[in-house]
Amino acid sequence: MLHFECDYLAGAHPRILQRLVETNTELFPGYGGDPYTQRAAEKIRTACGAPDAEVFFLVGGTQTNRIVISSLLHSCEGVIAATTGHVSLHEAGAIEASGHKVLQLPRHAGKLDSNELSEYLNGFFTDVNRDHMVFPGMVYISHPTEYGTLYSLAELQSLSAVCRQYRLPLFVDGARLGYGLMSRDTDVSLHDLAELCDVFYIGGTKVGALCGEAVVFPHGNAPKHFFSFVKQNGALLAKGRLLGIQFDTLFTNRLYFEISRHAIDMAERLKAIFIQKGYELFIDSPTNQQFIILDNDKLNTLKNHVTFDFWERLDSSRAVVRFATSWSTTAEDIDALEKIL
Amino acid sequence: MLHFECDYLAGAHPRILQRLVETNTELFPGYGGDPYTQRAAEKIRTACGAPDAEVFFLVGGTQTNRIVISSLLHSCEGVIAATTGHVSLHEAGAIEASGHKVLQLPRHAGKLDSNELSEYLNGFFTDVNRDHMVFPGMVYISHPTEYGTLYSLAELQSLSAVCRQYRLPLFVDGARLGYGLMSRDTDVSLHDLAELCDVFYIGGTKVGALCGEAVVFPHGNAPKHFFSFVKQNGALLAKGRLLGIQFDTLFTNRLYFEISRHAIDMAERLKAIFIQKGYELFIDSPTNQQFIILDNDKLNTLKNHVTFDFWERLDSSRAVVRFATSWSTTAEDIDALEKIL
Amino acid sequence: MLHFECDYLAGAHPRILQRLVETNTELFPGYGGDPYTQRAAEKIRTACGAPDAEVFFLVGGTQTNRIVISSLLHSCEGVIAATTGHVSLHEAGAIEASGHKVLQLPRHAGKLDSNELSEYLNGFFTDVNRDHMVFPGMVYISHPTEYGTLYSLAELQSLSAVCRQYRLPLFVDGARLGYGLMSRDTDVSLHDLAELCDVFYIGGTKVGALCGEAVVFPHGNAPKHFFSFVKQNGALLAKGRLLGIQFDTLFTNRLYFEISRHAIDMAERLKAIFIQKGYELFIDSPTNQQFIILDNDKLNTLKNHVTFDFWERLDSSRAVVRFATSWSTTAEDIDALEKIL
Amino acid sequence: MLHFECDYLAGAHPRILQRLVETNTELFPGYGGDPYTQRAAEKIRTACGAPDAEVFFLVGGTQTNRIVISSLLHSCEGVIAATTGHVSLHEAGAIEASGHKVLQLPRHAGKLDSNELSEYLNGFFTDVNRDHMVFPGMVYISHPTEYGTLYSLAELQSLSAVCRQYRLPLFVDGARLGYGLMSRDTDVSLHDLAELCDVFYIGGTKVGALCGEAVVFPHGNAPKHFFSFVKQNGALLAKGRLLGIQFDTLFTNRLYFEISRHAIDMAERLKAIFIQKGYELFIDSPTNQQFIILDNDKLNTLKNHVTFDFWERLDSSRAVVRFATSWSTTAEDIDALEKIL
Repeated sequence: MLHFECDYLAGAHPRILQRLVETNTELFPGYGGDPYTQRAAEKIRTACGAPDAEVFFLVGGTQTNRIVISSLLHSCEGVIAATTGHVSLHEAGAIEASGHKVLQLPRHAGKLDSNELSEYLNGFFTDVNRDHMVFPGMVYISHPTEYGTLYSLAELQSLSAVCRQYRLPLFVDGARLGYGLMSRDTDVSLHDLAELCDVFYIGGTKVGALCGEAVVFPHGNAPKHFFSFVKQNGALLAKGRLLGIQFDTLFTNRLYFEISRHAIDMAERLKAIFIQKGYELFIDSPTNQQFIILDNDKLNTLKNHVTFDFWERLDSSRAVVRFATSWSTTAEDIDALEKIL
Repeated sequence: MLHFECDYLAGAHPRILQRLVETNTELFPGYGGDPYTQRAAEKIRTACGAPDAEVFFLVGGTQTNRIVISSLLHSCEGVIAATTGHVSLHEAGAIEASGHKVLQLPRHAGKLDSNELSEYLNGFFTDVNRDHMVFPGMVYISHPTEYGTLYSLAELQSLSAVCRQYRLPLFVDGARLGYGLMSRDTDVSLHDLAELCDVFYIGGTKVGALCGEAVVFPHGNAPKHFFSFVKQNGALLAKGRLLGIQFDTLFTNRLYFEISRHAIDMAERLKAIFIQKGYELFIDSPTNQQFIILDNDKLNTLKNHVTFDFWERLDSSRAVVRFATSWSTTAEDIDALEKIL
Repeated sequence: MLHFECDYLAGAHPRILQRLVETNTELFPGYGGDPYTQRAAEKIRTACGAPDAEVFFLVGGTQTNRIVISSLLHSCEGVIAATTGHVSLHEAGAIEASGHKVLQLPRHAGKLDSNELSEYLNGFFTDVNRDHMVFPGMVYISHPTEYGTLYSLAELQSLSAVCRQYRLPLFVDGARLGYGLMSRDTDVSLHDLAELCDVFYIGGTKVGALCGEAVVFPHGNAPKHFFSFVKQNGALLAKGRLLGIQFDTLFTNRLYFEISRHAIDMAERLKAIFIQKGYELFIDSPTNQQFIILDNDKLNTLKNHVTFDFWERLDSSRAVVRFATSWSTTAEDIDALEKIL
Repeated sequence: MLHFECDYLAGAHPRILQRLVETNTELFPGYGGDPYTQRAAEKIRTACGAPDAEVFFLVGGTQTNRIVISSLLHSCEGVIAATTGHVSLHEAGAIEASGHKVLQLPRHAGKLDSNELSEYLNGFFTDVNRDHMVFPGMVYISHPTEYGTLYSLAELQSLSAVCRQYRLPLFVDGARLGYGLMSRDTDVSLHDLAELCDVFYIGGTKVGALCGEAVVFPHGNAPKHFFSFVKQNGALLAKGRLLGIQFDTLFTNRLYFEISRHAIDMAERLKAIFIQKGYELFIDSPTNQQFIILDNDKLNTLKNHVTFDFWERLDSSRAVVRFATSWSTTAEDIDALEKIL
């Protein structure tokens, strides 16, 4: 059986495991007070071109979204997200459980549109009944999106400009950020993110780590008591080194980018094969997730040989499925898939 | 410099790391759907003598306390704990942040007394104003306690009996459970816990794992939607294997107990040395944490050579400090400490 | 200036004030322990044909929606409501602040459709990813709706049947319930509500009281600790008599229905005048709220003479406005409005 | 039967009811947009000597405590209160339900001691583990306290000075403020409160109103979105006039102070009788609540003739009970009680 259902099928990139083994008997204070965590933060600051950035290492994606969002919102505020945003649908109500509404705007290939955002904000702040409604308090986007798509630099600049006009923090969920940065089809760099966003995270779990997400407040703008808030929300590891060593390794010799590039290469080959074999793409994704339309028969046949993720039903006879690549996807996997398709 | 400040100074027991390396390229579904997680749960059921137990793997201690407690309490209920309970003091308000009061009872060497508990509950349920107060909804104890002390089987049975009389779940925080089970001074087994408690956890982080706590509902009594609640609270790992493989290893060939026994042996030697050198124990702990009284001069001299945890000031000239052992403490460390003392 | 902007423009119906004056020096225990509160509850049980009903008196509508909904939902559950439901839009995020998502379904003249509900629930409970999503935990409707429309008995029965199939409580927000019950166009009675719903409330604030909403759990099915939950949420009055006396009066000699009928009569006359004068109705409401389409010029002229509520913009040249009647609307008010229109 | 169990036994002071009747048919916008609410706020600003004060009218005490406290605290902060503070014990966990810990300090006749407060704060902010604990975020006191006692101006100044040193808001629960201000034994005025506190409320429910508490931010320092926060928490009345008219009346011709003075006069007579008859005071209260020690026999005899509040058991043969006076207590009631004692 071939496996393409997601990008967290295997353990960690071997270089990460190797470093965990090499450093295992070194003794450090807990809770991120170890030198590797400090070093990882410094390397991330450098990679982002953001010397004032504050960097925190959390464990997983839903956790990070919940903590960052609820740390930045006032009780009367909600977070704006696309209807297909991860926080809107697939986090078991984590945002609402922290007390905040997800204010949904339409998505366009998974993305928010800055004009629609601007129109919504203008409408809200001129509504005489606004004091009885949920105030928009920040904007959430993911890059890549749930559909593997990317914001162009111009789109990101427009969103950022609208956010700054209304003094709303712009938060970028980068659970798969590496695949966005190393896509052949992007003009957005880490430096751009650090300049245009108020907070973003560099996903580890889905980009070769065992676990871990690096939250970056690029302008030294972490909210008050953020460390304690992370603790209160159960996201502070006693052995913080587990995150520090992983991110130190990911940001040494560009491993993070190397891993991402490899997955992109595999995904590009996979997409080319699908196209060549006459399959229809649901969306033309430039990242490590590919969304393919399968008719029911094909779907049922294929799933005997390869795992993929059922995404959504298109109509009674067709469905959208997702194939994902990662550090562990090999050229042999792609070759084998080609034979099956 | 020697290090004795806590039991999470090093990485994981080498056998755990080795298994992470060996299994790294195996491909599994996420979120605990992998075979190692299933196997670890099964081994824990066996070790507990609780074939109906439901087992969930969470990441850290504060997280586990918050999630277990808030999953079991009604909105109008609080959790009873000793004034020195970890949830009372050192979790940044995690329990209250989930909406619940910590109802504090006096501690006796870190422990709750079942008579005092019974008296409190009787007082509460006969108070005519109780509908304007916080209902006691469960009882939290830790074993070992914050002071390294242990409940005897008889004490645990008494507490359990009071809890059952009032239909209150009894929750045992076992962040350091191994050190309790392998103490030379205990008559409490995993089977006893599974019989007497409604939920407890087997701590991994402080007993040789990189991270991870195994929550056990011994009577198949996990609350409704517990899996989703874990997700909502940001405690569900995409690469659930990280926890599954660690606990599978810990419960293979009794590694969990072997690690704990080693730390106990080191702690017993350490305690003997302190006594022999004329130091005063603050409390006579039978587990891996030793609480020593130091006068200010001694404290200041010692801390140039060895790290330990400042616990509390006793009076103006003396303080209580904690020395802890773990899987990584060596006989050489103890010998070196002996020379320094 | 004439006033038609809402149904809470004046104080209380004079008979209510009179009873507050008459009973003012009687001395009673607080928090609803007075005989009037008990008597009001008994009269409501009788009016509902629900001898087992539990009745609680709360102060206002948003408060009641928040408390009822959050008392019935599990942490992982959300409440289903129409996109135009009051809880979806106009309560400043009160539901989310209590930790729960509002799961929005399309509205049809302000109402939920039972087929769409059934389809959504079936889709949810067969979705393999449902454990990562928000579980539907109850259904919220209002009767009358935000648009003054009413469910037919058949529609209510269908909704109730779907809810019971999925074991979801059905909650009816009756902030304006009297106007629904006394509409000339309804076949739904209080007895029907008591039979078909799991909880509903009989609105006082907007039907002639100073404040107050009577929450009815018709099958004696109030959740555990509901009284304390009301207290905890700040909705328990020390002088509970204020609510008890008002509802006792409203349910003596059918005052509640008399008030409602009067407002309906006024609204029917008002609607007839609008139609006769050639105005376009946005929706044909059978209750005390009338939604009229005005072009911009008319709107600007009218608002110099009469107050009404701006509801929503229809297009660049037209808007929807609301006219409401209540116990305090007089025939003279309607006559005066007729002259202005 | 005579009634002395609390100060909310009767309805409202007649002048309040009269004004509700007189204004009943005047038509106003809702939610506090009426002229009486504006006028009441203005009169309160004048009475406080605080022209910049922001004034909000809420419905009840627990509600006000919860909303004010949670509006001012950061997620990682708790509120400091005496162990006997109302928020510590008798509000069904309302503060914790809003996510915050009540940090308890010892009480002295119901009061906080500024030296102990200072010592606690100094200890906290120099504790190396403070980031794992709950930050003190504000100080809550009540005046009068739960035991009817009063802070002297010097005590209040000391507390205020400590709070300002640590930049912690000082919040005074004035549920019974009138009785404090009109005590014969106080040197604290409304002007002092407005100067020394950051927020306080002027209790209406227990000082002659049907309901209502006036929250005063004396320095124009209400937190962002406070109006919406009140709405979100279900404390905003649609017929806001109910509160506005009551407080307008209370602050017209000093009715608030007249009511309070009357109750104080009655309480002083009552206390004199108890002393003269040889009863022992539990505490020497200068306000409208008197705490008397009764032996069990006396208690059982008395309660056949008069209602009072059981406060706490002193020992096996004696208990503390509370007698309270209010606007509705008459000289005849006191005379009748004298005969019974």
